[in-house]
Amino acid sequence: MSERKPYTLREIAERFGGEIIGDPDTGVRQVATLENASPGTLTFLANERYLQQLKATRAGAVILGTAMRDATDLPRIVCANPYVYFARVSGLLNPAREPVPGAHATAVVDRSAVVATDVEIGPLAVVGKHVNIGAGSVIGPGCVIGDGVTLGAAVRLHGNVTIYDRCIIGDRVILHSGAVIGADGFGIAMADERWVKIPQIGRVIVGADVEIGANTTIDRGAIDDTVIEEGVKLDNQIQVAHNVRIGAHTAIAACAGIAGSAKIGRYCRIGGASGIAGHITIADHVEISAHTIITKSIDKPGTYTGAYPFEANREWRRNAAQLRHLSDLAERLRALEKKLAALERRES
Amino acid sequence: MSERKPYTLREIAERFGGEIIGDPDTGVRQVATLENASPGTLTFLANERYLQQLKATRAGAVILGTAMRDATDLPRIVCANPYVYFARVSGLLNPAREPVPGAHATAVVDRSAVVATDVEIGPLAVVGKHVNIGAGSVIGPGCVIGDGVTLGAAVRLHGNVTIYDRCIIGDRVILHSGAVIGADGFGIAMADERWVKIPQIGRVIVGADVEIGANTTIDRGAIDDTVIEEGVKLDNQIQVAHNVRIGAHTAIAACAGIAGSAKIGRYCRIGGASGIAGHITIADHVEISAHTIITKSIDKPGTYTGAYPFEANREWRRNAAQLRHLSDLAERLRALEKKLAALERRES
Amino acid sequence: MSERKPYTLREIAERFGGEIIGDPDTGVRQVATLENASPGTLTFLANERYLQQLKATRAGAVILGTAMRDATDLPRIVCANPYVYFARVSGLLNPAREPVPGAHATAVVDRSAVVATDVEIGPLAVVGKHVNIGAGSVIGPGCVIGDGVTLGAAVRLHGNVTIYDRCIIGDRVILHSGAVIGADGFGIAMADERWVKIPQIGRVIVGADVEIGANTTIDRGAIDDTVIEEGVKLDNQIQVAHNVRIGAHTAIAACAGIAGSAKIGRYCRIGGASGIAGHITIADHVEISAHTIITKSIDKPGTYTGAYPFEANREWRRNAAQLRHLSDLAERLRALEKKLAALERRES
Repeated sequence: MSERKPYTLREIAERFGGEIIGDPDTGVRQVATLENASPGTLTFLANERYLQQLKATRAGAVILGTAMRDATDLPRIVCANPYVYFARVSGLLNPAREPVPGAHATAVVDRSAVVATDVEIGPLAVVGKHVNIGAGSVIGPGCVIGDGVTLGAAVRLHGNVTIYDRCIIGDRVILHSGAVIGADGFGIAMADERWVKIPQIGRVIVGADVEIGANTTIDRGAIDDTVIEEGVKLDNQIQVAHNVRIGAHTAIAACAGIAGSAKIGRYCRIGGASGIAGHITIADHVEISAHTIITKSIDKPGTYTGAYPFEANREWRRNAAQLRHLSDLAERLRALEKKLAALERRES
Repeated sequence: MSERKPYTLREIAERFGGEIIGDPDTGVRQVATLENASPGTLTFLANERYLQQLKATRAGAVILGTAMRDATDLPRIVCANPYVYFARVSGLLNPAREPVPGAHATAVVDRSAVVATDVEIGPLAVVGKHVNIGAGSVIGPGCVIGDGVTLGAAVRLHGNVTIYDRCIIGDRVILHSGAVIGADGFGIAMADERWVKIPQIGRVIVGADVEIGANTTIDRGAIDDTVIEEGVKLDNQIQVAHNVRIGAHTAIAACAGIAGSAKIGRYCRIGGASGIAGHITIADHVEISAHTIITKSIDKPGTYTGAYPFEANREWRRNAAQLRHLSDLAERLRALEKKLAALERRES
Repeated sequence: MSERKPYTLREIAERFGGEIIGDPDTGVRQVATLENASPGTLTFLANERYLQQLKATRAGAVILGTAMRDATDLPRIVCANPYVYFARVSGLLNPAREPVPGAHATAVVDRSAVVATDVEIGPLAVVGKHVNIGAGSVIGPGCVIGDGVTLGAAVRLHGNVTIYDRCIIGDRVILHSGAVIGADGFGIAMADERWVKIPQIGRVIVGADVEIGANTTIDRGAIDDTVIEEGVKLDNQIQVAHNVRIGAHTAIAACAGIAGSAKIGRYCRIGGASGIAGHITIADHVEISAHTIITKSIDKPGTYTGAYPFEANREWRRNAAQLRHLSDLAERLRALEKKLAALERRES
């Protein structure tokens, strides 16, 4: 990281609260991990597991939880949630790049587009007809924005993002490279041994403060819209099919797949490579473990899991083979129970 | 949707058949879902489950199956397959945008490329040497088409599609954004503790009327070609490895992965996030459930499934733990059966 | 394939060793599969399974292992590892295209970029500030290279690759289309019912001789770097989360997902669509089967598996239903064992 203006612990605590122990004039320029910290950096301890690393850290200062307040002699800030506190300080020390207003000479911006004056449009980006771009947004190099798209204020598109016609993207949304918003949903009907394409005429509506990872795809609705509510966080390579609705502040880890018309609640946490079947409903505050396939609706908060445990190949072979006989096995067990009961009756 | 020319039920039935009940001069401008229909729109009922919504719909007219002919008082078209009928009407009301002939001033089209006169080449697209593009095709913004590629007639490439050298794309193929056709297959051989790359010199051949979803990747063949036969429909984020062959009119849902040299039959339906192992053969008309891993050839039509059911985390833990002892469990059951049989012999 | 200069078996054996049987002046222009070979091509037999095809091949010459030396009358080269030998000959006959030095007129290369004289920069590529590109590299059309990126010598970026700011790419690395290197890791913390973004300030460091497949994503580190060591081979659509380290010469098949901070050893082979949980460690020389989820560290070499076998749908339903009762089943078995032991004691 390049050198930057240092902040003192006092300046930091004035912004974000917390109690300073040690010299409040200690200056920090960057955040660091316990392990790789150098003087002039600020680190944090969010998990007791790393207490050993705290002893050895070369950081200039530390963010700690209340229970750990005396775990180091270094200058420190004690607060309720060190991880969130750290996130905020890191945001302060690593602000997003300011937009450089104007469209690059090589960008292709349709004359009918309405672009706020302080928007940055990168080289070789394409902005279609009647596109609307709000104040402070940055369109990265190579992005393709279809006709009639609306982008809110302070939207950030990294390079090579694609947005199809008529989609709507809320304020402060971040889209990472390779993301594709608004491609046709997978709508086909079989007639006379040929597939007939069902035009996908809905849109994708993305709420404010959503972040969408690299190469994630969100399909437009078949007739009505696909909706990603505010504050949703999607990791990389997620597939969101047509007419899905994802509730506000739900977070989904990489490689998950959400099939068509599924409705996911608010504040859900969905693990990586999990799958949600089509047309089902997931309640608010549901947690789904990684690699779990949800095949029917869930109406109660809680954690749901279904990943199959791995084993050394030899043991797996033995056990997996029995899976194919599980029903027989249960049958045989039932038969044994009956016979034994009969024997016991005779005995007594 | 913007306003468009209305069609009367009479005009629609003249094109697509079906029986009109109610005023044949009823005009419709757009299709709609039962739930969100407004006057002037045409909706459909393909599933009895939605009969309640039919009662409440505000649509101007409805497409219905024969068995449901009297389920509403609205003007309606009765036909054999309302979903397919609806698809056709929607196609009529929402025709694909006509190409605007010519290459955008910012497109880079090699002089040796042979481009039919009515082809549209979008801004900032790249068309390589000796590329051949058939009549009525549209190349979206930011597409990269490698040397020696052949595109048929009426091909539609959305923005930011990449096609590597020498691939062949059939008539009326649709490629969605982020799709990559013809990248190198994963061919490596270990020698002296280093991987040696095996040049991937085959091509990808895509038949007519194929649709390929956003961010789907189809690798070129190692030596011979990878082949996607006519009418195949691939959803988003599917991986097709080198030398795969997918039979005509097979449909594959999102996030599926097909390993190298697998041969998939015609008219198969393959669920989302399923996997097909390398070098195996799947018969025609096979249906594979979502999230199912096919590890050996299937020579009979039918439905094949393998997804592991999810449970509330606590129950899952208890059951998943036993999976590791399944073979022992079967062993113990066998021992019990023997002992009990011995006991019974003694008893009698 | 276009016609090319033929090599004689003698010339080939002079480069790569092996014993020639038959006419050493036999010329070959291209490699081919046994099945589709034509005269003038060189084929290979690496697996006895294909002996029948060897009998029927129309190839001009064959590469064979020592044990198979007399399996054909065709001119042939006998060697220890025919597959590796074939890979090398194919590399000779199909050399990578030479770079055409210079930046295309439509490329946007920042004045502060340091580009070796013989580098090719394709049309409509974007090269950011202070980028460094080593000798003999090729930047494909539509690539976006962020500020401060370093590319080594002889790097090959196919079209539409995206590299975020400050990432470092080693010599001879190949990146396929749609790959995204250095997007933000998925770092969020919940505070007051809102997600706070944790700035991702680490980089991605990619070692020499790495190949990265189409649409694969490798996230930058949260604080420290994400590291892909030399010689690693990644197939398409792989997700590598922040702060992962992949050891040298490990190969990972398509659609795998590696969660944050996982450490994978050297010379591992990881199957397609497998998953590695976050913060775990995998030893060197571990083999993981396709579709296997690794949820805890592995400290011993060996093969690990966890895919759930598929079945015809009806059988699967019966067996999968029992999975939910597996713990009960084990319990009942234990009860039976006890009762039977009691009975036996009484009997004796």
